[in-house]
Amino acid sequence: MSIFKPITQGFLFTDFYQITMAQVYYRQGIALQPAHFEYFFRSYPNYGSHQAGFCILAGLRTFFEWLVQAKPRPEDLAYLKSLTNRQGKPLFDLQFLDWLKEIDFSCLQIEAIAEGRVVHPHVPLVSVTGPLALAQLIETPLLNIFNYQTLVATKAARFKRAARSQVVMDFGLRRAQGLGGNAGTRAALIGGIDFSSNTGTCAALGVPAKGTHAHSLVQAFLALGYGEEDAFLAFAETFPDDCILLIDTINTLESGLPHAIKIFQRLRQKGHKPVGVRIDSGDLAFLAVECYQELKKAGFEDCFIVLSNQLDELLIHQIISQVEDEAKERNLDPNAILSRLVFGAGTRLITSAGSCSLDGVYKLTAIKKQNKWVPAIKISDSPSKILNPGHKKVYRLKDKRNKAMVDLLCLPEERPFDHFEFKVVHPLDLNVFRKLKREDVLEAEELHQLIQKENKIVYEFPDFDQIAHKREKDLAELDSGVKRLINPHVYHVSLSEQLATLKEKVLAEIQKSKIRF
Amino acid sequence: MSIFKPITQGFLFTDFYQITMAQVYYRQGIALQPAHFEYFFRSYPNYGSHQAGFCILAGLRTFFEWLVQAKPRPEDLAYLKSLTNRQGKPLFDLQFLDWLKEIDFSCLQIEAIAEGRVVHPHVPLVSVTGPLALAQLIETPLLNIFNYQTLVATKAARFKRAARSQVVMDFGLRRAQGLGGNAGTRAALIGGIDFSSNTGTCAALGVPAKGTHAHSLVQAFLALGYGEEDAFLAFAETFPDDCILLIDTINTLESGLPHAIKIFQRLRQKGHKPVGVRIDSGDLAFLAVECYQELKKAGFEDCFIVLSNQLDELLIHQIISQVEDEAKERNLDPNAILSRLVFGAGTRLITSAGSCSLDGVYKLTAIKKQNKWVPAIKISDSPSKILNPGHKKVYRLKDKRNKAMVDLLCLPEERPFDHFEFKVVHPLDLNVFRKLKREDVLEAEELHQLIQKENKIVYEFPDFDQIAHKREKDLAELDSGVKRLINPHVYHVSLSEQLATLKEKVLAEIQKSKIRF
Repeated sequence: MSIFKPITQGFLFTDFYQITMAQVYYRQGIALQPAHFEYFFRSYPNYGSHQAGFCILAGLRTFFEWLVQAKPRPEDLAYLKSLTNRQGKPLFDLQFLDWLKEIDFSCLQIEAIAEGRVVHPHVPLVSVTGPLALAQLIETPLLNIFNYQTLVATKAARFKRAARSQVVMDFGLRRAQGLGGNAGTRAALIGGIDFSSNTGTCAALGVPAKGTHAHSLVQAFLALGYGEEDAFLAFAETFPDDCILLIDTINTLESGLPHAIKIFQRLRQKGHKPVGVRIDSGDLAFLAVECYQELKKAGFEDCFIVLSNQLDELLIHQIISQVEDEAKERNLDPNAILSRLVFGAGTRLITSAGSCSLDGVYKLTAIKKQNKWVPAIKISDSPSKILNPGHKKVYRLKDKRNKAMVDLLCLPEERPFDHFEFKVVHPLDLNVFRKLKREDVLEAEELHQLIQKENKIVYEFPDFDQIAHKREKDLAELDSGVKRLINPHVYHVSLSEQLATLKEKVLAEIQKSKIRF
Repeated sequence: MSIFKPITQGFLFTDFYQITMAQVYYRQGIALQPAHFEYFFRSYPNYGSHQAGFCILAGLRTFFEWLVQAKPRPEDLAYLKSLTNRQGKPLFDLQFLDWLKEIDFSCLQIEAIAEGRVVHPHVPLVSVTGPLALAQLIETPLLNIFNYQTLVATKAARFKRAARSQVVMDFGLRRAQGLGGNAGTRAALIGGIDFSSNTGTCAALGVPAKGTHAHSLVQAFLALGYGEEDAFLAFAETFPDDCILLIDTINTLESGLPHAIKIFQRLRQKGHKPVGVRIDSGDLAFLAVECYQELKKAGFEDCFIVLSNQLDELLIHQIISQVEDEAKERNLDPNAILSRLVFGAGTRLITSAGSCSLDGVYKLTAIKKQNKWVPAIKISDSPSKILNPGHKKVYRLKDKRNKAMVDLLCLPEERPFDHFEFKVVHPLDLNVFRKLKREDVLEAEELHQLIQKENKIVYEFPDFDQIAHKREKDLAELDSGVKRLINPHVYHVSLSEQLATLKEKVLAEIQKSKIRF
């Protein structure tokens, strides 16, 4: 029955041209030429009515899960061997396939910024150094994994920010791209979402899966001739200590809420503590306040009120504002109500609605020729598409308030911020620069970590708590203007003066060589 | 290393509440109560500046690939057994887990509309009949698989329509949601895309993977001190009969194209036929016409010109219009140029840009009580969210021109179109109806096919050719107004008079019962 065999998840989880290019490199004798590639994105997600001012990086561990089992298997090679060209002859030659059989991706040296960290455009997030053909062959899975997980981790951080410190849960699996929903849940957790309903992924990641119940539970009881209260009772008896009731199947205030309170009273009598109610339709802010009042009257002011229905960061932001307004009008403490809110995030989180892809790219930036690294560049009419050449290190400079002030791209050996005064240059327009003084820099944190070197993973992948710690620290170090949901302040990414000079030089050489054509 | 074990792809690939609800049903003794669920969507994708007027259904086979291996495995059950409630006691009881161990999804009777067919809102696309708990447990994977694949198949059909009959290729893997890219490629092929670069999925599906080369090939040669022509030559020598050259790395018209032509001449001398060029930036329509002229001058008018760069259906439509304009101004035959065009579809196809999720839902519509089916309904303030109750059959009525005129939802036993005259009622507003005459109906095609019955799959899944045949027939039977890319004409979906009467009756009963609260 199964057509989606593992063949779709290993070496062949790639664009076909990666393999044809590898054969070209192999035939030309340059497959093993040392090369340097960098992964970066060019712009933050723009959701239309709102925009991201930072991203949260995610995907590194998943990428390595792919990488460690990416060596071509016999079935992968058999498929490639079976392919023919337009003349009916084999497309790939046996020598190449024999070589491919022996490739070992662990020889690639890989540096990266840790998952969960705040990252910005034009900054190399992953650096790969190694044989040209091998470094090229990993492009598609690397982009696939980092682009989507970074996109969702970023969206998750925005949901969480809009929700202030309240719990946000991921319910998005049913609107994800097939098995991609698993990557989406992982990324949402890295971005700061608290829980997910995606059971398999929670099981794999060792975090508790969470959920309530569906409208169909109430519907089923109604159709069988029972009432909503019977449905609630059945749920409460089965899960007396974990009882969250969905109260909008018939009518939230007239039916669902009073029935829930009756059931909660019964639970209390038996010594259980009800957990909360969920509302999935209607004016969520108004209903939340109404529910809070009634729950409080009945002595259930500790109950959570889970809100869901096509929420995104702006809607969450708006719900909170409206709750504050409604509370004031009724002389209620808005914070007491807000502290009870839980937000369910579905479609708009898992799809990153409004901006459903990240424009991350993986580009050759240097190649070794006769033992010397030569910077590579791609020119373009669009300045944002002109590469920053060569190997680069990235430092995050922090000011005296311990706020991040600039991510500085440097040549590997330099430390410009050790000078009394130094220039930082705009990454796209080399004529634009600022001068900074050493005394203004409290800390220069190197962002890259060595992940794989000399056939070994030398990095200990952090657990979710460690990732969360890093993320929260990075977020605290961002100016709030950068964290605004709408039209955020632009964070600075700059080139060191030496890197800018190299870029200028390489561009000039390319321009010269163009004259020859 | 691996955390994404198969635990994320079988029974536990689901929302947690499906499993908690199953335990409620089990404890209440209603887990095996026969129930009827239907999958349908409520509205076509709306991409903002353009809108779909039909969808192409996809996902059935993938869903069954999940279903046949969805029985809980020991590791799935062990995970569930390990979960505790807020008191630290087991969340699921042993009796329930023992029962779960033995469940068998093959007892569900499943009817569905075939993959590749044109489908519309409110039409039950998949009908599931069987034990309440089992029919409920499949909800999340069913929605996950059908929603995304139908979304992409629909987008693919639009790309293909915009491209007239020209070849469209899928390059989207790097911007997909992780492994979801495999489902996306499959769906794109079902929707009418001709080829994909996603190698593993092509291998699994038995279709040829296709691709060209990346800018990095040229960049690598340049950095090593060679020229673009050397890069092209290396590619051409490796793939002399399958040579497509990417000509925009340096400058399309001044460098890429003349170099490609030189290489093509060399291939011709050696008896090979070059395949084409690819352009990935710039004014694609203008560049395509320029390339065509130069290629023609050199005797390569048969070469394909592959265009890519963030294409969607409107951009393809616009490129074709502009090519026609440019051709006329130069006294060229526009059709000769158009016949050479190939379109590469990436991000905007695989993400269904503009509308990145389908709002498909899976709802309980009937439940069996004392050997009698009771229709279930969910009421809502929004008419589009009020369910059409009960079991339903769907007929597509065709008029004398052999064009589809209405998808008619009926009670299972009735054939209203056999009457001299019959009413068809608006699915949301029961006061709105039309009268049709038997003589106006050329054909009434029943859309559902029986897929699984009495523990057996009784359906032969069609291959891609058969799917394509169905799709093209259905598209030919749609009025062109419905197929417009922008603001399409609304296709009619209606209820039979008997079904409308049932809906009215069930709604009235619910309204009555509400008074009791």
